Amino acid sequence: MENKLIGACIIGQSGGPTSVINASAYGAIRAALDAEEITQVLGADHGITGVLADKLYDMGLEDTTELELLKNTPASELGSCRYKIADPDKDDTDYQKILEVFKKHNVRYFFYNGGNDSMDTCDKISRFMAKSGWDCRVMGIPKTIDNDLVGTDHCPGFASAAKYIATSCMEVAKDSRVYPTGQITIVEIMGRHAGWLAASAALATKFGAGPDLIYLPECDFDMDSFLADVQGVYNVKKNCLVAVSEGLHFADGSFVSEAKTSATDGFGHAQLGGLATRLAEIVKERTGAKVRPIELSLLQRCGAHLASATDLAEAELAGRMAVEAAVSGETGKMVAFERAEEDGKYVCKTKLIPLTSVANAEKKVPMEWITEEKNFVTDDFIAYALPLIQGEPKRPVENSLPRYAKLKKIIAK
Amino acid sequence: MENKLIGACIIGQSGGPTSVINASAYGAIRAALDAEEITQVLGADHGITGVLADKLYDMGLEDTTELELLKNTPASELGSCRYKIADPDKDDTDYQKILEVFKKHNVRYFFYNGGNDSMDTCDKISRFMAKSGWDCRVMGIPKTIDNDLVGTDHCPGFASAAKYIATSCMEVAKDSRVYPTGQITIVEIMGRHAGWLAASAALATKFGAGPDLIYLPECDFDMDSFLADVQGVYNVKKNCLVAVSEGLHFADGSFVSEAKTSATDGFGHAQLGGLATRLAEIVKERTGAKVRPIELSLLQRCGAHLASATDLAEAELAGRMAVEAAVSGETGKMVAFERAEEDGKYVCKTKLIPLTSVANAEKKVPMEWITEEKNFVTDDFIAYALPLIQGEPKRPVENSLPRYAKLKKIIAK
Repeated sequence: MENKLIGACIIGQSGGPTSVINASAYGAIRAALDAEEITQVLGADHGITGVLADKLYDMGLEDTTELELLKNTPASELGSCRYKIADPDKDDTDYQKILEVFKKHNVRYFFYNGGNDSMDTCDKISRFMAKSGWDCRVMGIPKTIDNDLVGTDHCPGFASAAKYIATSCMEVAKDSRVYPTGQITIVEIMGRHAGWLAASAALATKFGAGPDLIYLPECDFDMDSFLADVQGVYNVKKNCLVAVSEGLHFADGSFVSEAKTSATDGFGHAQLGGLATRLAEIVKERTGAKVRPIELSLLQRCGAHLASATDLAEAELAGRMAVEAAVSGETGKMVAFERAEEDGKYVCKTKLIPLTSVANAEKKVPMEWITEEKNFVTDDFIAYALPLIQGEPKRPVENSLPRYAKLKKIIAK
Repeated sequence: MENKLIGACIIGQSGGPTSVINASAYGAIRAALDAEEITQVLGADHGITGVLADKLYDMGLEDTTELELLKNTPASELGSCRYKIADPDKDDTDYQKILEVFKKHNVRYFFYNGGNDSMDTCDKISRFMAKSGWDCRVMGIPKTIDNDLVGTDHCPGFASAAKYIATSCMEVAKDSRVYPTGQITIVEIMGRHAGWLAASAALATKFGAGPDLIYLPECDFDMDSFLADVQGVYNVKKNCLVAVSEGLHFADGSFVSEAKTSATDGFGHAQLGGLATRLAEIVKERTGAKVRPIELSLLQRCGAHLASATDLAEAELAGRMAVEAAVSGETGKMVAFERAEEDGKYVCKTKLIPLTSVANAEKKVPMEWITEEKNFVTDDFIAYALPLIQGEPKRPVENSLPRYAKLKKIIAK
């Protein structure tokens, strides 16, 4: 086979962790260990920073069963980073170092698992290697709870976070309604620029109990409309559950979480705390009701015990596909998902798209999926998200607590 | 049988909700429906306030399968209350009203599910009925995530919250260590006066990954020792996970969550936010590290998807035992748990203890179970808590989201 390329591979994890990023790592590692073209499988310690530091783990020395436990281990087991790599045309120091490490270990395959910044890193490395004449295939594996990568129907990590959010909102909806005295609860959900995660709280409302109101960063936030919405629901139900995206902003672009508040007019002096705490203060002042802010914080992105089996399988598939595609000759691409239907059932197909088309772009919730009042999502969103969260994975437990992978992480020489 | 008492029963839920209080309700309702002495099973809307308002649901009209779903439905499905009932010797208005409602429905059995305040209510009603000559048997069913009821080895609700906390801490421990840049994470856990829940975070550390430091309200909090502890761990690991009980207080009894803080000396002017947020500010100022506060908030008490099967079974058992004991002639008692061992395995036995011995008392974590440095718990605590969190319940799901009980709640005439 003409395009057969023999050598080692590096697998790296980058950006914010998710419940399923290790499932992608497992998919890639397993496929790489099984590929005869790949002579050594290296895991980068903390993504590209581990490559730069030549801190690479020999994944071939890990126990097979421990590797398999990666599938249900949350967060980036190899370590992650948020390293912004320079433009190679301006400063190629990092790239020269990477090339040196690639040559030392005869690295011919580079797999990078992350969001749009990571795809940008991937793309730059790919182009630099091509220019340098070092034959190396570079593939991106998508990952982000934010679900904001373009060119793919959805992103590994999103559905598990969505399921955690919907389940938790359902439980909170139950809890927040037990007293006859009334309560307004404000749940803050991740998502700086895209509202996919906050929108997912609607799944709880649709299938049991959940937020009455949902606000996304796709729309400019209007404090008066918000307060009127909340008061309206509270007047009728003596209860109101609100989901807000952390990235809510006013029409002038400033974040609501940074809005100045006071006890008197709602817009006085700055206070500590996140968006939910801030909004809770204002709502309490306006309504006189008991108001409880809840921030789902890191829990929503690492809650692997509530992962979607569909998401886990797709994350693993994405990792495996990247390796198989590279071995068969592809480079400079990211694995992407295409939604299809077979016998009326959701199926997920993979395709490859150019890294350049993904890097530094963002996909937002379509405006048609947001209600006219800009305070909830439509059934189109439910139809989109529901198939993605399906399935309860068999998660390994010991002593009724999660059993995560324990890797030896032996440095490759 | 001489002490055979025929009539209706009321079942009420009181105090803060838990993941398993509805399992106790189910145990009591099912046993009452099956008892030939009990002519009608009434569920009180929002506990004693529903009795006072004569708002009682006829549980015999509910679908059997929906009733059974109560076992996995979090929060108080009948509604709860925090109503402080008067001393009957000083003001018997409420009691006369209760007696009137009891007579109207021929209520001969009263089952109240709650913590120590609720047992006090229970006790007062029991004594008033005896004085009034209305033959009525009153039984308490224990419930509290705080695990602070005296006379019982542990309380239904605690173990499920403990399991949620341990699992979440394990996930957060994973997430908080992914970046090479270092992080200090402070997790705030419920418990105003007793540290059982915060102590449970140690299960995560023991069996995988969890907090490095745990602070309980059983000990006076010392800010300097705390900061030195955190700095010490961070210096070595470049990471530190801390679990704190919301009820932490200084030696003078004032809550740490109400401590004044400033950006300069750690003790300046008051700020918004809970204990974790407050401590995070101080730690950030002192260490310069990235610090992340996380409040588990309501999630820890309503996270039924992570309930302990042991806890669920025991909660149901407690409800059933209360009914069976009352029918057989008992009154003025609370169902309590006794720990035993059979074939080297944990077993839970029930006993009855006088309501008067439970009302208004608090059981704390024994000082011997707290380390000398007052910043962690010993293996004695682990041995105590571990059997309680065992077992994954079969939880009903629809669309991969929880399927909770849907009661008709038909008002009894």
